[in-house]
Amino acid sequence: MRYELYYWPTLQGRGELVRLALEDAGEGYLDVARLPARAGLGMPAMMRLLSGEAVACPPFAPPFLRIAGSKQLLAQTANILLFLGPRLGLVPKREASRFWAHQLQLTIADWLVEVHDTHHPIAVGLYYEEQKRPAKQRSANFCAERLTKYLGYFEKIISSNPGWNGGLVGRATSYVDLSMFQMIAGLRYAFPHTMSELEPKHPGLVALHDRISARPRIDTYLKSKRRVPFNQSGIFRHYPELDLPR
Amino acid sequence: MRYELYYWPTLQGRGELVRLALEDAGEGYLDVARLPARAGLGMPAMMRLLSGEAVACPPFAPPFLRIAGSKQLLAQTANILLFLGPRLGLVPKREASRFWAHQLQLTIADWLVEVHDTHHPIAVGLYYEEQKRPAKQRSANFCAERLTKYLGYFEKIISSNPGWNGGLVGRATSYVDLSMFQMIAGLRYAFPHTMSELEPKHPGLVALHDRISARPRIDTYLKSKRRVPFNQSGIFRHYPELDLPR
Repeated sequence: MRYELYYWPTLQGRGELVRLALEDAGEGYLDVARLPARAGLGMPAMMRLLSGEAVACPPFAPPFLRIAGSKQLLAQTANILLFLGPRLGLVPKREASRFWAHQLQLTIADWLVEVHDTHHPIAVGLYYEEQKRPAKQRSANFCAERLTKYLGYFEKIISSNPGWNGGLVGRATSYVDLSMFQMIAGLRYAFPHTMSELEPKHPGLVALHDRISARPRIDTYLKSKRRVPFNQSGIFRHYPELDLPR
Repeated sequence: MRYELYYWPTLQGRGELVRLALEDAGEGYLDVARLPARAGLGMPAMMRLLSGEAVACPPFAPPFLRIAGSKQLLAQTANILLFLGPRLGLVPKREASRFWAHQLQLTIADWLVEVHDTHHPIAVGLYYEEQKRPAKQRSANFCAERLTKYLGYFEKIISSNPGWNGGLVGRATSYVDLSMFQMIAGLRYAFPHTMSELEPKHPGLVALHDRISARPRIDTYLKSKRRVPFNQSGIFRHYPELDLPR
């Protein structure tokens, strides 16, 4: 395999944005932490690299990527996609378009932090149950203001894309489109009432989600065991008390 | 001027990481929103571009950069530095080193969000005074756990840099070093007691801060009116109740 992906084995999280790109391109990869420890893989293999012993360029956190033939580990989700985009044919060739795609991906990264912090506004190291009250306040603000701002921005980007294909960047599907699919899918899981209110105002994003989920390799992937289901330990969590009331 | 920087005129914020790179390189630039509106500049000029009317690749938020000869605006601080780094001679030439520098810069970006959220854990659109109680909880966790984790990580990166110059990347000063100077300076302003506890354990970062602040162009810049002072509307804010007790 050319690529080894390292990410927490029981949740989608940021690793999912990398998985979607590799899966859509039909690129084989090892999802190392989900493989058996007895084969020298699994969590022990990830934690060894994460501890930074004898590692050139140690990552601060997963996900990170090991590339065959390189001693260097590559971390930070948007940085990994910046690297993989051209190699997987998931970004236009022009340099300016690549900066633009990366800029959008970094905006998605900011958005994802805000989604995470709806249920963890005080500390990543505490349980949700220890920060329920501020979580409710933060979520109310997220659903009423921040979510609308992000959705509106990306809807505008789709409708003003001179490539006119219904995607975010250029004329063909990009890694940014794949990440946006994940955002919409995750937001539907976490905030179903809020999203059912907001989706009719954002038809371009809904159409993009549907188009990505119907791509043959993505469709196969989503139905496979390689796709970790949404759950209550990921970034997108469904706590009904954090969603808008029906 | 080759570059026009657009950022909120009364605070350092993320724009400061771009300013430090331009200043260190001796590259002239217009800090547009701080210039007179009557000359067609100032906040009105920034807000016009931010509204996205007739703009190719509209930004989600400041800072953004306009480059002479390009219609495209470049946004997202780390993306701007990815673009400027090679042009200002502030990153090594090897592609692998550039991904590494960018990876570190994105980790600084994550850290900066956590600093911001110490005083705004609930909503960016509310005043600090409306979220003081959760701010105190978040700050306590930040000072006790997250800050140590980030400082320890970057201290290790300095001490294991094969370039051995006391910097984070390669053998010469990089834009990542300049951003790290800003982190240390800002943390000292916001959390003076916590930092005086932690600094002795992170001599490499302290030495890096001192070395950057003594660079002639940076020294000149810091003493000029172009440097916005730290204040209570930036990312780094000094609320004594959020710092560790003396």
